[in-house]
Amino acid sequence: MNYPNGIKKNTTTITNNISYSNRGMTLESELNISNEYYRSIDKAYIYKKPTPIKITKVNYPSRDKAVITEGYFTVPSTTDYNGIYRGKYIDFEAKETNSKTAFTLNNIHKHQVEHLKNIDRHQGIAFVIVRFQHLNITYLLMAKDLINFIETKERKSIPLSFFEEKAYKIKDGYMPRLDYLKVIDQIIGGI
Amino acid sequence: MNYPNGIKKNTTTITNNISYSNRGMTLESELNISNEYYRSIDKAYIYKKPTPIKITKVNYPSRDKAVITEGYFTVPSTTDYNGIYRGKYIDFEAKETNSKTAFTLNNIHKHQVEHLKNIDRHQGIAFVIVRFQHLNITYLLMAKDLINFIETKERKSIPLSFFEEKAYKIKDGYMPRLDYLKVIDQIIGGI
Repeated sequence: MNYPNGIKKNTTTITNNISYSNRGMTLESELNISNEYYRSIDKAYIYKKPTPIKITKVNYPSRDKAVITEGYFTVPSTTDYNGIYRGKYIDFEAKETNSKTAFTLNNIHKHQVEHLKNIDRHQGIAFVIVRFQHLNITYLLMAKDLINFIETKERKSIPLSFFEEKAYKIKDGYMPRLDYLKVIDQIIGGI
Repeated sequence: MNYPNGIKKNTTTITNNISYSNRGMTLESELNISNEYYRSIDKAYIYKKPTPIKITKVNYPSRDKAVITEGYFTVPSTTDYNGIYRGKYIDFEAKETNSKTAFTLNNIHKHQVEHLKNIDRHQGIAFVIVRFQHLNITYLLMAKDLINFIETKERKSIPLSFFEEKAYKIKDGYMPRLDYLKVIDQIIGGI
């Protein structure tokens, strides 16, 4: 099982807010600071959704405090990121892989693929960002191409060669850290 | 303090998934079933975001299970609902009030108002849904009008008369339960 937000099994205490746990170079933290940068220059308003949690017990040690004492991570029904860019709805999922040769499709839930398909059909900008950690390459693959692969190939993973052919490389930078909207501009046409 | 999702202080055990706790007639559950209906007819893809929680302790009783043993509700940085409708980005907050005469503005966080302002400036469809429970009336107020009120009046609450003048009544129905997109059609023009 994959835990959301890179929680490791041997971690029993998490001190930071889970949605902003900036562990240096994780894809999630780079996307968070990039989105913060985009907001700061009024370019786009894109946020990571909170991790879905099923709360089963809450205690109230004092009048104005609620402490969750039992809860479970649940499977997200949509993707992790969405927002608005150039007046358009934008929606994506971001994943890292340790493989140097392929991206395993069970990294993305079926209903997330279905969700991206719905967004694409309704003229939203839908895509996935996939980082091959050991190759130090981050790709942006449009939902159309992802879905086309899934629906036409009988494979459980997408080979690197497919990304090389169909996806766009996202450049590392300083501000923003990961300028994925530059890739979107290339795809949907410059401003 | 207001707890998210209508959690009451005297409740110590919650058995349902908090994001879908359908307690009959709460505004949240009516919006959830309306959004489910809109998805089922491929009209719009609008979801409630998960409740933001700061997780501070997680236990792993077995290899593939994670149990959150300490967590806190945090203030949401955006609104509760967003998605896509007619190719446009749609974003809103929903609130219920017990008052029969006014809607207290501290029900909506300052950064949520700021968020709605950003979305409106970027051509998204931004609004609030406010239900006056005891009057059994649900209003849709566009972000522009909400912000105009906040920025021009020095008041801590919006009187009912302002809703009567500027907001749109949302009709109750069977499917969908609350047809708020019909109001949006009226405002942005029919299809």
